[in-house]
This record gives sequence, C-alpha cells and structure tokens, in this order.
Amino acid sequence: MTLADIGEFGFIDRIRQGCLIRPQSVIRAIGDDAAAYEPAAGELVLVTTDLLVERVHFLKAATSGFNLGHKALAVNLSDIAAMGGTARQAFVGIAVPESCSLAYLEDFYRGMQSLAGEYGVNILGGDTTASKNDLAISITVTGSVPAAQMLCRDGARPGDRICVSGFLGDSRAGLHLVLNHITPDTPAFRNLFQAHVLPRPCLAEGRFLACSGAVSAAIDVSDGLSADLWQIARSSRVGACLHADRIPLSKDLHRFCSHFGYDALEYALAGGEDYTLLFTVEPTHFQAVAQGFSEQFGNPLHVIGQITDSGKLEIESAGGRRTPLTPSGWNHFKPG
Amino acid sequence: MTLADIGEFGFIDRIRQGCLIRPQSVIRAIGDDAAAYEPAAGELVLVTTDLLVERVHFLKAATSGFNLGHKALAVNLSDIAAMGGTARQAFVGIAVPESCSLAYLEDFYRGMQSLAGEYGVNILGGDTTASKNDLAISITVTGSVPAAQMLCRDGARPGDRICVSGFLGDSRAGLHLVLNHITPDTPAFRNLFQAHVLPRPCLAEGRFLACSGAVSAAIDVSDGLSADLWQIARSSRVGACLHADRIPLSKDLHRFCSHFGYDALEYALAGGEDYTLLFTVEPTHFQAVAQGFSEQFGNPLHVIGQITDSGKLEIESAGGRRTPLTPSGWNHFKPG
Repeated sequence: MTLADIGEFGFIDRIRQGCLIRPQSVIRAIGDDAAAYEPAAGELVLVTTDLLVERVHFLKAATSGFNLGHKALAVNLSDIAAMGGTARQAFVGIAVPESCSLAYLEDFYRGMQSLAGEYGVNILGGDTTASKNDLAISITVTGSVPAAQMLCRDGARPGDRICVSGFLGDSRAGLHLVLNHITPDTPAFRNLFQAHVLPRPCLAEGRFLACSGAVSAAIDVSDGLSADLWQIARSSRVGACLHADRIPLSKDLHRFCSHFGYDALEYALAGGEDYTLLFTVEPTHFQAVAQGFSEQFGNPLHVIGQITDSGKLEIESAGGRRTPLTPSGWNHFKPG
Repeated sequence: MTLADIGEFGFIDRIRQGCLIRPQSVIRAIGDDAAAYEPAAGELVLVTTDLLVERVHFLKAATSGFNLGHKALAVNLSDIAAMGGTARQAFVGIAVPESCSLAYLEDFYRGMQSLAGEYGVNILGGDTTASKNDLAISITVTGSVPAAQMLCRDGARPGDRICVSGFLGDSRAGLHLVLNHITPDTPAFRNLFQAHVLPRPCLAEGRFLACSGAVSAAIDVSDGLSADLWQIARSSRVGACLHADRIPLSKDLHRFCSHFGYDALEYALAGGEDYTLLFTVEPTHFQAVAQGFSEQFGNPLHVIGQITDSGKLEIESAGGRRTPLTPSGWNHFKPG
C-alpha cells in the first residue's frame, strides 16, 4: 500500500495519534491552515529547519523508516540544544515518491514520535506531497529559551576553554559500516552503527550549560569538529587551538580504526554527525561548570583546547608541536 | 556558476542582504544553530509549512526563479492570512540539483525578498543542500494572532453566510496557459497568467476579518473552492450549499473559457491555487462586515452560499435546483 491508495488526509488520520505529546499550550495541532500555540512566557522563540534528501543524506535501502524518522528529528532537536533551548514543536514536510510504501512512512512517523515523546516535543503540523524521484524530508522545530541564557556561536573569547560533551568520530565510523554494507556484528560495531543512525540530541546538556551562565559560545557537531569549531572561531573573530591527545575517542572507534587501518583522530576532526555539543567556557568559571556537569550527567566535560587570538585553527600534538588545522567537514571527508 | 562553485556559506553571504526586512524583535537571524526572536506580546505563535517539488508543483523550465520564490512564499503567507494572523518570519530550505544555476537561485531569493518586503516578513534562516534530481523547496512561516481573534476551520454553523474575498478559477486558467505553452499575449491571458504565477496572500483581508469577531470559520482556497469548502464543512460537522450564479468569475476567465470552450464554473469550483479567502460569517453581523470590507478594500465581499445542517456539499443553480457537489481539488482536475 502506498500514499496514493489512502491520500494525504487518510495518511494524516493514521499518523495523527501520537503526534500530540505535550498538549499544554497547544491551541491548534494538525488539521488547520497553521498550527497555533502559546509561546513560553518571557522567552525567545527559537526556530531551526533541516532538509534531508534521499541519495544525498541517506540511502533509503540502508535505512529503516524508524531510524530515518528518529534521525531527521534528532538533528533539528540538536540545533535547539546548541542554543541552550527547550524544544517545543516540530513540523514535518515529506515529499514521497510513488515507490515508497505506506508501511515505511508509518515507521518513519513512529521513529519521530518515539524521540518526540522522550523530549516532550509535539508534531504539530506539516505537509505531505508527492515527489517524482527521491524521498525528501523537511523538519522545522521551534523551541524557547530565556533571552539571557541563549547560547550563540559568536561569544568565544581568547583564553576560553574549548569543550565537548561526548565522543567524536563514532558516527562517521558507523557511516563507513553502512556505506560498505558491513554488518555490525560485534558490540563495538553495533555501538558505532547506533551512534550514526540513532544520534541523541543533547537537550539536557544544552539547558545545563545555558543555565550555568559561563558558556560563551556553543554549536552542535554536525559537519565535523574542525568545521564546527571554525564556525565558532569565524563568528567570534578569534582563533582556536586543539590538543590532539585530549579529543575524546571511544574504545569502539579505536577498535574500528585499528581493524581497518584508519586514523581515529581524523575521524574525530572531520567525521561529522556526532551531535555532541562543542562549546567554550570562561576560564574562571570552568571548574564549577565541569563539576556540575559531571555530577548531573555522570560524564566528564572534555576540555579539548582553548580559544586564541590567532584568527586561525591550530592543533597541538602531545609533544607540543602546533600545526595549522584545516576545517574539513563530512562532505570533504576522505578516509584512509 | 552553480552552488558547488561557491558552497553553502558563499551562497548565504550572497543572499543574506535583503533577508532582514523588519529587524525589531529579531535577536538572531541567519547564521547560528537556530534563529531567535521575541514573540508578539500576548499573542499565539502560528506556524505553517509547505513543500514544493519540481515536476510535481512546478516546471522549472516554465517558471522564472523570481516567480517561483514569490509563489513559494506566498502560499505560506496565505495560510497565515487564513488564520487571521500577521506573518512574521520565514525559514527557507532548498535542495538544489547540480544543474541549477546560481543565477536562478539568486532570482528565487529576489522573488521571496520582494514579497517578504511588502508584508514585513523576515527570512530568518533555513537550510541549503544538494539534491540528486529535482529542486525541492520547503518554506516554513511563523506568524502571530491574538488568541480571541484566531480564525479556524471548525466554527461554521448552519445559517452562516459563505463568502470569498475575490475571483475564483483564474489561477487554474493561468496554469492551463503554462502547461500548454500558450504565450499570454492578450491582457486577459496576462491577468490569468499573473494570477497563477504571482498570487497575492490576503493578509490584510485576514486581519480585517479576524478583528471583526463575526467570522466563524476560514480557509484559503488552495486546493479548489469545493475541496476547501469541504474542509470547513468536515471540520465544523456541517453541510454547505453554494449558489452557482453567485460565484465570482472574472471577465478574463469568461474570455478564456469561451475561447477554449471550457466551463468557467468548473474552473472556479475545482481549480485551486486562488489564494483568496473562503470564510463563513454569522448572519446577524454580515451586513456590518460586508460594508466594512468593501470600504477598506474597495472590493465587495462575495456571498456565494450558506452553511446548512445537511452534512453534505450541494450546489443550487440559478433556477433553484439543488444537486450534490463532489469536492474535487486540483489534483483530480480534468478540464473540458
């Protein structure tokens, strides 16, 4: 069965249930010209949008509907996390080729609803339309944040510590498994695959950092550590120096890289789609933030470098040698 | 030159200017993980989204970038108009095939910016990505409306007058010209072409109706008069009867139909993409609303029927004969 068999309205009737997770403040959900909700009192409205296109961002044959739905929503929630916000409402546009089964679409919605349920996000509307060729997904998420707490990219100052909230490079290793049809048949490979297909948006971590008042800039690692750090440096008109031996690499990534003969550090620097938070902390408040973070989340803050006034990206080896670092994202990525 | 020559960031730098039309209340525009703005005090946030896909919604060869940008934004603004709201911010996702020139994309942005400028709407963010095949455009617009003024689809009551704010069927006639490569070389054809490619969102009319307090239901005519009226009837759990001879048809449409031998009424009922407002007015307040409307806009409100308790759509001929009316939208449209 495909969308053509039941039509747009038949489809909406099927997926509507499970879309309204947190009905408070929602005045109009799916079913009118626009959705309507009460904004959070005294807070800014945040809006982010991402477009995922078949054969560019995902291979439909290699991705279950559920995982695709999860990831399409997760990457937007991650943008709200990087602003220090609370995610509120999601709007889902899908352009569906005739070949796409209704079962796949319903599974896609289940993946979104499952993640939306975890984070208290409503799916309040969208648009369902045909496509001649590729499946395309456009998700827009609104959130809110108290103005004084908002985390932006442009506030980093020389001397600030550069931190990340989790491992880097795992997702890129998972992508390698997907692209090369390698079955994730060991615990390490399963974790890497999981990191790629079911990333976790760091919303709680983002709120914690926003409330700390000590975070000067933040971004989520979507294009790759070096490319996203360059965004902070460029926006803040500063430079940055990473310490190669402090970048957190998982045991799973080490196993993967020694198995295939790849460089784990390169995966971490240029891999992308990690969706950990990359942020800078004022040095005088660093100790308190790091302690609070590890108490609340059971994981340490990883300090991986510091902001400089060089206007450039650099990386320092364990031996203390500093070399220029070229920002490179997933689309320029050449493994091996 | 294409997007590949300058990259996503180069493109953003080129189109950024002219995107911030009304800087008040905007805290973060294009360039961070999410946009941020202050919601209108005491009003609801409205959100609508539409996805347009090449070869489904438009033929790139037959559409200038400017006109495509105008229309892609206009259809979203029209949804905010149908809720009685003020449009505030737009977010633009585009998936661009390699074959699409940078000049076309810049023209597309000029079309959006021109319309955004007219209505005080900011383009605050979006996503620019590659596509393997078709150009796809996803626009999300946020707006605001005082809660007590919001116009929804589900408030129509038996006895309410059914009204439209302008002509119907012109856009479908314009589409006929486009699809059949007919040069619009007469004033009538030019007007019909214009109605199709450069529709006007009725934001001022929507605000007027919202403020009147006498409009029980509203929708914009996007799928076609009969299909959109059925949305109101279905949502409100009522029926509706149209008077065939009161449906406003332009002289241009009459000329077109007599030239090609088509039925103008069928164009009006099933044509779609008119983006006039279709709404219902409580009978006791109708006179005041109609007078205020024509004073403010210089055009009459067209009363085209009334809400019934039949649960069905019907149409009454000039002679008084009532027959069932099947809701049919543009995608089921068979001219001639």
